Amino acid sequence: MTAAHRPELARLSLNQETLRQFSLPELVDGCARGGVPGVGLWRAPVGEYGADRAARLVRDAGLTVTSLCRGGFFTAAEPAARAAALDDNRAAVDEAATLGTDTLVLVSGGLPAGSRDLAGAREQVADALRELAPYAAGRGVRLAIEPLHPMYAADRCVVSTLAQALDLAERFPPEQVGVVVDTYHLWWDDTVDGQIERAGRGGRIASLQLADWVTPLPEGVLLGRGQLGDGCVDLRRFRARTDAAGYDGPIEVEIFNPGLWARDGTEVLAEVAERYVRHVLRVSGEE
Amino acid sequence: MTAAHRPELARLSLNQETLRQFSLPELVDGCARGGVPGVGLWRAPVGEYGADRAARLVRDAGLTVTSLCRGGFFTAAEPAARAAALDDNRAAVDEAATLGTDTLVLVSGGLPAGSRDLAGAREQVADALRELAPYAAGRGVRLAIEPLHPMYAADRCVVSTLAQALDLAERFPPEQVGVVVDTYHLWWDDTVDGQIERAGRGGRIASLQLADWVTPLPEGVLLGRGQLGDGCVDLRRFRARTDAAGYDGPIEVEIFNPGLWARDGTEVLAEVAERYVRHVLRVSGEE
Repeated sequence: MTAAHRPELARLSLNQETLRQFSLPELVDGCARGGVPGVGLWRAPVGEYGADRAARLVRDAGLTVTSLCRGGFFTAAEPAARAAALDDNRAAVDEAATLGTDTLVLVSGGLPAGSRDLAGAREQVADALRELAPYAAGRGVRLAIEPLHPMYAADRCVVSTLAQALDLAERFPPEQVGVVVDTYHLWWDDTVDGQIERAGRGGRIASLQLADWVTPLPEGVLLGRGQLGDGCVDLRRFRARTDAAGYDGPIEVEIFNPGLWARDGTEVLAEVAERYVRHVLRVSGEE
Repeated sequence: MTAAHRPELARLSLNQETLRQFSLPELVDGCARGGVPGVGLWRAPVGEYGADRAARLVRDAGLTVTSLCRGGFFTAAEPAARAAALDDNRAAVDEAATLGTDTLVLVSGGLPAGSRDLAGAREQVADALRELAPYAAGRGVRLAIEPLHPMYAADRCVVSTLAQALDLAERFPPEQVGVVVDTYHLWWDDTVDGQIERAGRGGRIASLQLADWVTPLPEGVLLGRGQLGDGCVDLRRFRARTDAAGYDGPIEVEIFNPGLWARDGTEVLAEVAERYVRHVLRVSGEE
């Protein structure tokens, strides 16, 4: 394997789910050859491959694990279910530590079955963070709350805006709990610029994730994310705003899209890198 | 036709799209028999039936037209397309006046094709309101800006929150431009209580519309609204908050749901009334 050196891709990370057609070794090999220095991993494929072995594979290729997806799903009507979720999340923290990433992405969970109490569900998330944050900090892992688009509020994530994520995160020290800025989830929000500033000021930006918004949305609205540049999100603006807020960490491309999965993975990887340069990076003359 | 008298339904209005299986005369007859005093109408079926004739039909049954859906779709790259939209909206105002309703619901339109400029599109909406509001006021019609759920921001409505709708409306006198509070679009937003207060204080609430949120969302996310009580929206809370904000106008049930359309319309109408009493109205002991 020849690791390519492409300075313009220095911050780029490929989230594993963008290239679901790749095995973990294929992903690592593809990124190394393509000059992409980071990978974002998911628990299930890492578990199948073995976390120790995955950590070695990535390290030996000279790459970095930029995040582990994901913990969370804290909300439940039954205390026993919430306790089980916490156990599972402690395991996720351990896996993140093994992989050598300091970022565990959290998707909070939706409304408990039969509940109409959004505020109550958000407090369950806060309760879980209170348990989990010190445990994670002790292992060098920061929890990264990801606000998901409001269309997921019922069944997936009761944290819908960057403001809500920060309201939760700010109850904890910044080195313990941060937030994920994901363009797919936040692009529509006219308060997001101010919240990015707030996140930067507080040292809370744990990750910047990219996907574009394309319509029509598919049934279930999970797998309809667009390749960078194919949709209506001003991706460059998000990069510029997070830059201005002091974030200089990885920029992770996370696109769930069956159309991309059906294509040759190496070709998609090259396309992502090309789109990243064209639609995300600084342009000459940019302030 | 025997008009039933049910005092508990005094504020209830059936939006025509909830009962798409009904012709306009069937809708009017069903509402009169069922004790539902209001109907919300749509331009296309009203146009087919004739606006004058529709106005007479509703009036003769002792019912009220609570709103006309809908104007809007102001956003477009080409000035000629924006001018055509304004012409069409003036026609919608005239139809509302003919029907005797003072409320024309506006869905602003999505991003112009190829655009990534949400703020610019929102300014196009403001420009259109500036043209249209005095024209409508001269005909006794108030424009009612409806914020749509953020999942429609790209292709249908760049106004996604009640705060944004109020930011637009407040550039005009309250008797010219109001807002629609629709539970389906706003339920997820933890700032909505404060914005309902703001809307009430300014005399801006033109309509309260109800539908429940159920998952999974269907492809295209248009026709997945739930019957009252079938989903996770705290409908009673929305009614109580708008009450507290001083709104005492019609409460319109607007559910786009093929499952409801496939059933007997009279049965669905009775079910809506029953659900309304159970899930929306004041309960004893409520503050």
